[in-house]
Amino acid sequence: MALLVCGSIGIDTVHTPDGDSRENVLGGSCTYFAAAASFFGGVRLVAAVGEDFPPDLRRTFDKFPEIDLRGLEVRKGSKTFRWGGKYLANMDQRESLFTELNVLGEEAPPIPAAFADSTLVFLANAHPGRQMAILEGTPHRRLAVADTMDLWIKIAKDDLVGLLTRVDGLVLNYDEGELLTGKKNTVAAGRAILKMGPRFVVIKKGEHGCILVHKDGIAALPAYPTDNVVDPTGAGDTFAGGMMGRLAQMEAGSAGRDLGSFESVREAIVSGTVVASFTIEKFSLDRLVEIKVGDIGKRAAEYAAMLRVG
Amino acid sequence: MALLVCGSIGIDTVHTPDGDSRENVLGGSCTYFAAAASFFGGVRLVAAVGEDFPPDLRRTFDKFPEIDLRGLEVRKGSKTFRWGGKYLANMDQRESLFTELNVLGEEAPPIPAAFADSTLVFLANAHPGRQMAILEGTPHRRLAVADTMDLWIKIAKDDLVGLLTRVDGLVLNYDEGELLTGKKNTVAAGRAILKMGPRFVVIKKGEHGCILVHKDGIAALPAYPTDNVVDPTGAGDTFAGGMMGRLAQMEAGSAGRDLGSFESVREAIVSGTVVASFTIEKFSLDRLVEIKVGDIGKRAAEYAAMLRVG
Repeated sequence: MALLVCGSIGIDTVHTPDGDSRENVLGGSCTYFAAAASFFGGVRLVAAVGEDFPPDLRRTFDKFPEIDLRGLEVRKGSKTFRWGGKYLANMDQRESLFTELNVLGEEAPPIPAAFADSTLVFLANAHPGRQMAILEGTPHRRLAVADTMDLWIKIAKDDLVGLLTRVDGLVLNYDEGELLTGKKNTVAAGRAILKMGPRFVVIKKGEHGCILVHKDGIAALPAYPTDNVVDPTGAGDTFAGGMMGRLAQMEAGSAGRDLGSFESVREAIVSGTVVASFTIEKFSLDRLVEIKVGDIGKRAAEYAAMLRVG
Repeated sequence: MALLVCGSIGIDTVHTPDGDSRENVLGGSCTYFAAAASFFGGVRLVAAVGEDFPPDLRRTFDKFPEIDLRGLEVRKGSKTFRWGGKYLANMDQRESLFTELNVLGEEAPPIPAAFADSTLVFLANAHPGRQMAILEGTPHRRLAVADTMDLWIKIAKDDLVGLLTRVDGLVLNYDEGELLTGKKNTVAAGRAILKMGPRFVVIKKGEHGCILVHKDGIAALPAYPTDNVVDPTGAGDTFAGGMMGRLAQMEAGSAGRDLGSFESVREAIVSGTVVASFTIEKFSLDRLVEIKVGDIGKRAAEYAAMLRVG
């Protein structure tokens, strides 16, 4: 009964369209995911940083005591992953200014023996071969969900297609869904992905919300509408963290519940949507550090009321 | 206690990305609007066609007995508005192949005296000066809502800004909202439009649903998720027709109700969303001709269930 995430921890530099920027702030898929999931219960993190990882960034994790850091490797002689990017005016598109893989380009960090009994597994964006290795290392998993990106669809599609026969769900962006399937219509892309193996796919559309295409149903949900968008970095990972964190919370509350059912996942993506709506309000994890579980509950209630129709 | 719409009736030629097409089918903003609104009660139509308007297209209106055609002028010596367009692969963008204004470029059709007591008025897309004249002709209106398009924002912005001080609501597309306000964020664009005068604005995002920005609140609602998209023509006008038709139905049910309130409009755009989801399933009005009120109710219930969270 535990949620595990494997992915990146990074040092980010972010420029926004209004000329504001932050240098060397905490980032990475695993970081955002784990912080978001931790509002719903414990989350086990597996990631590697280099010797250069700054103590002040490390201390940010102390603000999220539900993150189990036994899987955080500080690798001797290595450097931490670094990424720099600039958002374009609509905040939905960005260009990468630099990407230094560093430790991400080396051997994957090991899964601690204490984490082998994890039941929910999230494979954050990584080469699908590396994601597959995580599956092998978590034999007790009840639900495995993967993220991916355009790069892997382009250069490792066979590995990705192989991975899709082994996971319960896939989370990916709108344009990645089209790239993977050749279908422009989101529902059609989702149906095509289900034919590749998973029971469900969540297609993220940024400010336009997301669509869940599941073997047992389809649901479209809007993003929380706001004009308070400072930095969209990590919104997708936070979405996934809120979703998986909520599923882990459901498992804790009801051991027999089918976590991959249409209803379970639909309920969970609401949590993902709400937590992601906080992430974008400040740079890096600055907003997630501030909020409490009660803030998430309050906004979730507001979101539910907005969608109560008929 | 009656809904009036002024706009175009056209003869359309439509090409879809899969190579299918229809020539000389019924179209026009008023046509789609009135057909959609008629599922909720009576709707008064004010529009002009030319002598060339084919009897078989005219007979389509007989399928919608709730449309009051006393304002339909068949103008001697004139020709009907014609439009031809081609949808691009994503179905959300299209290019116009030809536009023959014909009677639309002449004097506006008069509002019949019997329609002067209309309480709800929808000003379908037209030059804002012409839209303003309709307002003058409906002194008993309780709620006036306008549509517009990029052309008027570009060539008649002052007239449009003047109109916005006189209407309760505006309905427009995503990109038109940005063009009018310079704001890329939809909520920010909506807030900027409210400063121009209206009490609410509904920003339509096609497959991504819509956002209601109202002086008393904000709501985002998704489109009904589907991969059955044959011809998007008229989706926006049908949306507006379902919305205004539902508001007219509310007025009929409760004379004192504030039709422009956040809750009234939010409830009404659900009806617009649902009726629009049928329009796109076939060419022209072919699907609206087939469906019954019960079909709309059934899909509305399904849509409400999809959005029932928390």
